[in-house]
Amino acid sequence: MGITPFPADDEKLTIDPDELQKATLGRWSDAHLWMRKEAESADLHHPIDLTLAEHRARNLEQLKLLTERNLISKAFPKRFGGEDDHGGNVAGFSELVHAHPSLQIKAGVQWGLFGAAILHLGTEKHHEKWLEDVISLELPGIYAMTEIGHGSDVDKVATTATYIPEDGEFEIHTPFKAAWKDYLGNAALHGKAAVVFAQLITKGVNHGVHAFFVPVRDEQGNFLPGVGGEDDGYKGGLNGVDNGRLHFDHVRIPRFNLLNRYGDVEEDGTYTSDIDSPGRRFFTMLSTLVQGRVSLSVSSSLASAVGLTGAITYANQRRQFNASSDIDEEFILDYQLHQRRLLDRLARTYADMFVSNDLLEKFNEVFSAEDDSDQNRQELETFAAAIKPTTTWNALDTLQECREACGGAGFLAKNRFTQLRADLDIYTTFEGDNNVLLQLVGRRLLTDYSKEFAGQSAGTVGRYLVEQANEAVYQRSGLRRVAQQVVDLGSDIRAGEWLKNEEVQHELLADRVRTRIASVASALRSVAKKSQAEQAAVYNQNQYEVIQAAKCHAELLRWESFTKVVHNTKDDDTRTILTWLRNLFTFSAIENDLGWFIENGRISQHRSRVLREYNNRLVARLRPYAQQLVDAFGFSQENLRMDITSGVEQQRQDEAAEYYRAQRASGDAPIHEKVLRRRAKQAAKQQKNG
Amino acid sequence: MGITPFPADDEKLTIDPDELQKATLGRWSDAHLWMRKEAESADLHHPIDLTLAEHRARNLEQLKLLTERNLISKAFPKRFGGEDDHGGNVAGFSELVHAHPSLQIKAGVQWGLFGAAILHLGTEKHHEKWLEDVISLELPGIYAMTEIGHGSDVDKVATTATYIPEDGEFEIHTPFKAAWKDYLGNAALHGKAAVVFAQLITKGVNHGVHAFFVPVRDEQGNFLPGVGGEDDGYKGGLNGVDNGRLHFDHVRIPRFNLLNRYGDVEEDGTYTSDIDSPGRRFFTMLSTLVQGRVSLSVSSSLASAVGLTGAITYANQRRQFNASSDIDEEFILDYQLHQRRLLDRLARTYADMFVSNDLLEKFNEVFSAEDDSDQNRQELETFAAAIKPTTTWNALDTLQECREACGGAGFLAKNRFTQLRADLDIYTTFEGDNNVLLQLVGRRLLTDYSKEFAGQSAGTVGRYLVEQANEAVYQRSGLRRVAQQVVDLGSDIRAGEWLKNEEVQHELLADRVRTRIASVASALRSVAKKSQAEQAAVYNQNQYEVIQAAKCHAELLRWESFTKVVHNTKDDDTRTILTWLRNLFTFSAIENDLGWFIENGRISQHRSRVLREYNNRLVARLRPYAQQLVDAFGFSQENLRMDITSGVEQQRQDEAAEYYRAQRASGDAPIHEKVLRRRAKQAAKQQKNG
Repeated sequence: MGITPFPADDEKLTIDPDELQKATLGRWSDAHLWMRKEAESADLHHPIDLTLAEHRARNLEQLKLLTERNLISKAFPKRFGGEDDHGGNVAGFSELVHAHPSLQIKAGVQWGLFGAAILHLGTEKHHEKWLEDVISLELPGIYAMTEIGHGSDVDKVATTATYIPEDGEFEIHTPFKAAWKDYLGNAALHGKAAVVFAQLITKGVNHGVHAFFVPVRDEQGNFLPGVGGEDDGYKGGLNGVDNGRLHFDHVRIPRFNLLNRYGDVEEDGTYTSDIDSPGRRFFTMLSTLVQGRVSLSVSSSLASAVGLTGAITYANQRRQFNASSDIDEEFILDYQLHQRRLLDRLARTYADMFVSNDLLEKFNEVFSAEDDSDQNRQELETFAAAIKPTTTWNALDTLQECREACGGAGFLAKNRFTQLRADLDIYTTFEGDNNVLLQLVGRRLLTDYSKEFAGQSAGTVGRYLVEQANEAVYQRSGLRRVAQQVVDLGSDIRAGEWLKNEEVQHELLADRVRTRIASVASALRSVAKKSQAEQAAVYNQNQYEVIQAAKCHAELLRWESFTKVVHNTKDDDTRTILTWLRNLFTFSAIENDLGWFIENGRISQHRSRVLREYNNRLVARLRPYAQQLVDAFGFSQENLRMDITSGVEQQRQDEAAEYYRAQRASGDAPIHEKVLRRRAKQAAKQQKNG
Repeated sequence: MGITPFPADDEKLTIDPDELQKATLGRWSDAHLWMRKEAESADLHHPIDLTLAEHRARNLEQLKLLTERNLISKAFPKRFGGEDDHGGNVAGFSELVHAHPSLQIKAGVQWGLFGAAILHLGTEKHHEKWLEDVISLELPGIYAMTEIGHGSDVDKVATTATYIPEDGEFEIHTPFKAAWKDYLGNAALHGKAAVVFAQLITKGVNHGVHAFFVPVRDEQGNFLPGVGGEDDGYKGGLNGVDNGRLHFDHVRIPRFNLLNRYGDVEEDGTYTSDIDSPGRRFFTMLSTLVQGRVSLSVSSSLASAVGLTGAITYANQRRQFNASSDIDEEFILDYQLHQRRLLDRLARTYADMFVSNDLLEKFNEVFSAEDDSDQNRQELETFAAAIKPTTTWNALDTLQECREACGGAGFLAKNRFTQLRADLDIYTTFEGDNNVLLQLVGRRLLTDYSKEFAGQSAGTVGRYLVEQANEAVYQRSGLRRVAQQVVDLGSDIRAGEWLKNEEVQHELLADRVRTRIASVASALRSVAKKSQAEQAAVYNQNQYEVIQAAKCHAELLRWESFTKVVHNTKDDDTRTILTWLRNLFTFSAIENDLGWFIENGRISQHRSRVLREYNNRLVARLRPYAQQLVDAFGFSQENLRMDITSGVEQQRQDEAAEYYRAQRASGDAPIHEKVLRRRAKQAAKQQKNG
């Protein structure tokens, strides 16, 4: 008997690894597995001991390998050798994360940002002129959006592109230091041209941010006249990517170079656009960024899975302390704390994978023009804005916990946790700062919420809140069935059944978003007629709550994706285990915000206690399947390349166990002083008694 | 009017920076400031672009500078040039963290572990023979305790030291691979000798773990016969430290080399010790490790302070988005979310500093023999075991949040967040894994708790718990006054006053520890007579709760230290601001565990809401003092060496503001399309109406 007993019948369950893996990989599992295989190739990895210059040079060479092996063109049009396959492209791209994150991001800059901007913001003539060279890497490029002084607020970039009708040219100009483009991949060394985002000014009018193709370096790699820059140097990670700064001193480019799909300038300087509203036009141009966010979501969930494969495999072989026996030490995965640390995160990682797959489907819908309506595009934006923060933060948290769960071994480069974490750190703030994205989600929730109450008086919102507190609202907003089951008279079993009910789980999570948003909406409504500054102040007083609501929304989306997979799982045992895992995801999410649920009367004090205990029981129940649950991710040792997944730990344990076994058998092992003292004590006692 | 208005009278408060700095530095502020000044010296820093070999070589050279400048001998006896000053030594040592963490840790290995082991575990003859060379670095050494297969469970190390009476020698031996000593600083390259922890076996009896002085390399740096090892290679950080593995194949050392302060072997092999109990003997020998834990606590709180100085300074200069005005963008520190992100952590960091200072006082008491009673030594152990985890985790969390709060700039090496964080990562698992230490705390709390109930029947504990739930216990356990104030009839003001009451805060935090421990004690008591395996299983089922209780205990200790400082602060305004900061620490701690407090009836739902709102108000109130609160830490730019603390951001902001001001004044700024459309709309409306 070990320290974590579990019901014997549970042990009989058998996971179907194929069905499970397919579920984690989603619709584009072929693209995942194809690239995962390619990613085993050692020439796409990198030794840890490269200098900055070597790392950057190797990264560039690896980009050439990607294009030579035709691994990156899926998303481009067929006539350029691509497949017009947007979903498959992201799925494959995401698998580069375990080969070499710097390679992934430099490839992302070249083809996912620079190339995609030409593809999506440019028109036919631009595609003909540049795309072939972009795909073949003849033309390495830069995506020059962010400025030192304007990261997340792209609308306010200060770089200008002023049309000069006499010459039929735009003049690209950086008016001050804060307007320098910064943190740009390929900018320090390799980029020959840049897609520059700048305020388009013609005939004295600023038409907002547009994208321009601007050559920046000659064939020898020297800056062209008027272009300057700086190297960003070493970073916290991703040091294979040559990030840098660029600035422009009245640099002229032909009118042709305006990427004019959504806005154009005629020869005489007349501005035209199919999209009337400058706001919507800006939003549409920026929506090319969404591919990056989707890619980061899928990649981050894979990185979490890699980390957990390492830490759980290790915890299943490594032994430490001998609480329950004088002879054998326990597997560290048998400790409850270790289970909570790793299995809670395993549940979260499964949720991340499932929701990222759904996000990718939505992305494919929009970009393959299956449904690229404005409505769907906006939904995609909000979906990505909710999921990219969750998945990227979860990857950092998971990799860190995995590293700590492996102790000193976790810190060694040969086990990869630290380098992966360092590389992924920036995923939380690039392609949209996580907190800024969550605000976007929050604002969208507020808008949807006010639409629902449109036409009703301000008092309605206020009343809604009061009613919520009274729980009377349950009758009105779909929470009825939950309320009916409230009466469990303190029975643990009934409380447990209630919590396991899917409808209850959904309502708990959905209602939390709604209630939080309602309270903010009510505060905002009270100043709706006030000055801009007063409204801003009230919004700001609720900003923290808005972010919390957006996080809760992301949790709901993950729950929904997870539950969909549970329903679609055909194998009974696999479905049962996935249900436990989904329940663990739900309950540990609720446990982390229990204050809110009890404060707002959604969960009673009694149920709260049951829920806490239930989480601890769930991890013990899942513990025997932990190895299968990570093995089902299906990474090969060539993908993982961790020392601790190579089998060395098992060898060491076997060798040590055999040594002690032989020593005990030999009978000449030294006897411990503690044992002698115990015996002496007993002997003295016997003498006294006898 | 900005987006975070605060009462005008608050703005009149003036912090006394000297008093505040003194409070953060504690009793050994002189030692802090002395070393902080020394740490400005560029030859103690390191460029980011060193290869592994260069980094290690530079680190060794820097160690020589430390000894040449007489910066490391404070803790050693006066006759070796030291000052017998244990508190001052740790205070000074901790300031190396901002110079170069690798330097700090390599110095810690040489003088804090290797040297301290000889000093504290050895006797006069050992001091005479080795200490001078240890201090001068003539004898670079290794502290060989941890084994690959035994990290935290030192009691079970498998390396043996068997006494051979015929030769008057010990034979040091590594029986299998899991017993290799691992993760040892100085082991890969520079160490000439090691203090090896091994099971002392003489006359067929194992007397438990003892420390032995074992030469490992000759003058040329080659391993001596029978000694072998491996290089641990690259790590997630601290790459200036040459960590490695060692193993011993029947290596002989003279009997002299047993560090025999707490246990000795006579020439004929007879074992003697002043400490009868093998358990207590082991504990006493290990207690030399406590210096490392204290040092890491002080160092980590300084690292958090460095990070916050960077991020808050930046947030006070950088502007982004213009919510409240058409012209000016907001300081990012004016956003509520940013305040919650940084000021919550500022409060925690102040708490970490204050509690680390108290820990250092306790450490000094024991090591200066002011009070080195067993009781006090045990209290020190538990104190350190509670605070080292909190401070090291908080440093990682704070540095990460600071890096994210600075966006892309936070990721650049020149702003130092990422490298500091990478270096400090391992602080959470070395010198005692944080979770293992917290278990130690938990077990101690359980022991103290059962002592209190000793002699009472098992039922007492059970009854205690029931009574807790009934709140009747308030009458009994010092919670009476809290209970008397429970009736606030839903008044926000009364609820606020209640929360701000110091006695209430203390009881809330203290009672939480006690109640959690009581529930575990009750579960354990029910199996007190059962088998070892059954007891272990029940303990394991409560392990997560034990860890939570230990974390709560650490929070209580931090609160007590913080409050003591508040009481000792003489300047009224400074005390007021520190009180707000302490309240923010308390309330955000409670907010993070609100579920527990409401579930257990300690905080009503109404008060819970008030507390949440109060936190948001507190950060707005503290916001005007944020810069002064970090400036008071008193780091120079030579200590910080962050690009963002150099003033460049302010320059960029000023330049941009001036550009826009001039543009507005000139009247020839391009007009935005949005403005034109707005005007056209208004004109159309007027025409229609008029």
